[in-house]
Amino acid sequence: MAMDPQQKKVALRAINYGLYVLTAADGDDVGAAGVNWLTQASFEPPLVVAAVKDDSGTAAIINRTGAFAVNVLGEDQLDIGKAFFRSTTVEGDRVNGYRFEPGPDTGAPLLVDLPYWFEVRVTDTVAKGDHTIFVGEVVNAGVRDDSVTPMLLRSTGMNYGG
Amino acid sequence: MAMDPQQKKVALRAINYGLYVLTAADGDDVGAAGVNWLTQASFEPPLVVAAVKDDSGTAAIINRTGAFAVNVLGEDQLDIGKAFFRSTTVEGDRVNGYRFEPGPDTGAPLLVDLPYWFEVRVTDTVAKGDHTIFVGEVVNAGVRDDSVTPMLLRSTGMNYGG
Repeated sequence: MAMDPQQKKVALRAINYGLYVLTAADGDDVGAAGVNWLTQASFEPPLVVAAVKDDSGTAAIINRTGAFAVNVLGEDQLDIGKAFFRSTTVEGDRVNGYRFEPGPDTGAPLLVDLPYWFEVRVTDTVAKGDHTIFVGEVVNAGVRDDSVTPMLLRSTGMNYGG
Repeated sequence: MAMDPQQKKVALRAINYGLYVLTAADGDDVGAAGVNWLTQASFEPPLVVAAVKDDSGTAAIINRTGAFAVNVLGEDQLDIGKAFFRSTTVEGDRVNGYRFEPGPDTGAPLLVDLPYWFEVRVTDTVAKGDHTIFVGEVVNAGVRDDSVTPMLLRSTGMNYGG
């Protein structure tokens, strides 16, 4: 049966997502991208899966280093999120205008204004579509403010999927 | 640096999820499970990733057939979702009490009360943790009621992650 492209789009956009700034670093080469295609995938070991645009600088760095960090945006941080929908610029201790510190395990940037973060070491890669699927183990994590409700992509009126 | 288990739990629970009934069928052998670890992972081809408990009947069927379906729960359908947190029982055209029809491409059960669905053919499997990670291509999809807002797991007070 032939798939109806419009039904496919609407059905896939029914998946719920947060919004995250996914970062990676290879020495001075830094990538930071707003992403939403992210899920946990195992408790033990703690695995996550993230899909990152194939042709992005961030994916290229992860392919070289085998590591990335995820910074979780709070519900009131859409302005910060939008700053990472463009190419990455580092000035001093700021990436795309926001202060970061290197992740203790991976060196990937951790954005100090964001409430939750975790670092990931890639164990498996699936490169079959227009995004690279990185499977990895969570090796470190931190909470800066556990009172913050994470952003829900649907609430922003934006979507990325379908 | 050693990871703090509590920080890891809180940080990973900051990921936002929906709630879905993931189904599979191998002839009369049917599996249907409430899952939340699901994300799209490519536009072209349209790929999704789902993580399904290793020791579940549903994962066993998917491993045999290479196919599954995802049924998206609406925000007011928590009672239906909870019916799929237990083992699968089929009686006539009902699975765990809810009416289904076989998916046109995969035969996996589509729950007629749920607003959105899509069928998936598995392309890659990563079996490294306590859940099997299935990567697959969306081969068919449908919308029964596009006015329904998909369920947000966080809103139920439940969580599965950390």
